[in-house]
Amino acid sequence: MKILLIGASGTLGREVESTLRASGQDVIRIGRKSGDMLADFADPRGLASIYAKLKPFDAVAIAAGDVAFGPIAEITREQWCFSFDNKLLGQIAAVQQALPYISDRGSFTLIGGLFSEEPIPLGSAASTVNRALEGFVVAAAIELPRALRINLVSPTLLEESVPQFGHLAPGVIPVAAATAAQAYKRSILGAHTGQIYKVGASLRG
Amino acid sequence: MKILLIGASGTLGREVESTLRASGQDVIRIGRKSGDMLADFADPRGLASIYAKLKPFDAVAIAAGDVAFGPIAEITREQWCFSFDNKLLGQIAAVQQALPYISDRGSFTLIGGLFSEEPIPLGSAASTVNRALEGFVVAAAIELPRALRINLVSPTLLEESVPQFGHLAPGVIPVAAATAAQAYKRSILGAHTGQIYKVGASLRG
Repeated sequence: MKILLIGASGTLGREVESTLRASGQDVIRIGRKSGDMLADFADPRGLASIYAKLKPFDAVAIAAGDVAFGPIAEITREQWCFSFDNKLLGQIAAVQQALPYISDRGSFTLIGGLFSEEPIPLGSAASTVNRALEGFVVAAAIELPRALRINLVSPTLLEESVPQFGHLAPGVIPVAAATAAQAYKRSILGAHTGQIYKVGASLRG
Repeated sequence: MKILLIGASGTLGREVESTLRASGQDVIRIGRKSGDMLADFADPRGLASIYAKLKPFDAVAIAAGDVAFGPIAEITREQWCFSFDNKLLGQIAAVQQALPYISDRGSFTLIGGLFSEEPIPLGSAASTVNRALEGFVVAAAIELPRALRINLVSPTLLEESVPQFGHLAPGVIPVAAATAAQAYKRSILGAHTGQIYKVGASLRG
């Protein structure tokens, strides 16, 4: 199976890559700064030309996306639009632009996150965007043509991110990126569609 | 209680107004084309001057917001941005811009909708935006200052909308706008925050 992995160089992306390779899959790494192909998926034209070059492929998996953080009274319109353009519309466009090229029964695997249901102070844009992605995936699943599938991986705090972000999520039991990577494998090699894989520990919802 | 009602002239807005007036509340109607004050909340500067004129007030309630509809393969970037700017960022900005003026313990009541969890073909932007609003409300609830509150009314198909939209939601049992208006009353006159009021019939999840 030929899998395009966007955000392959991040903490989670590296684990997704090794998990998929260990299953014998062909993984093509796409990144903003490094990878087999360079693209910034927040650029509206970023992926279309790459998809055209790499076609046909069986899966698009995304492990990247930024949002702005700030006090709710102070988040600017520009910060909202940055958040929508990047993690939200960036992923949506990555799906839409792949539609002419992805193989029948291919799959899309998007990345959400814990804050969708468990907000933190300064994180209203993250909660908004992560929850929005759930809505997109549920809707896209019933509309995609040619038996294409789409799922969302929504990991809790990653163990690898605890030193940097652990203080923002007190009491949240983290999960290893390698565990979150298994959800990508379920989505890509399995038969699900419209699923939100809430990867995390027992204290989660 | 002095309540600013945005979208007062719509099917739902009219019922919200009469329900609140019947409870003895002072309702100021804000609309794009009609009302006590005219404003388009999709305009980033639309509400700030109105808020400054009407301060202090106890509640902002919204019963308006548009999104684009179209096939998932064809929804353009412009249609996504229209949907984000209008129903999503329009409501978020309506909250943010009111913060300097709303009274302590005041409330915000936003409008979502059924498609957040029950998608329809051509409705991926609606599902995305309505679910995003749930994330915003849950996050804002833990961060708003001065005991301000925020809730989301997410009605199923309105009975009054069945002639126009009923064919899009086969088997969905509609609810009267007057029933949905009760959720606004619960949000504004009650003590909840961070609630998603899923107003609808027994078949709804």
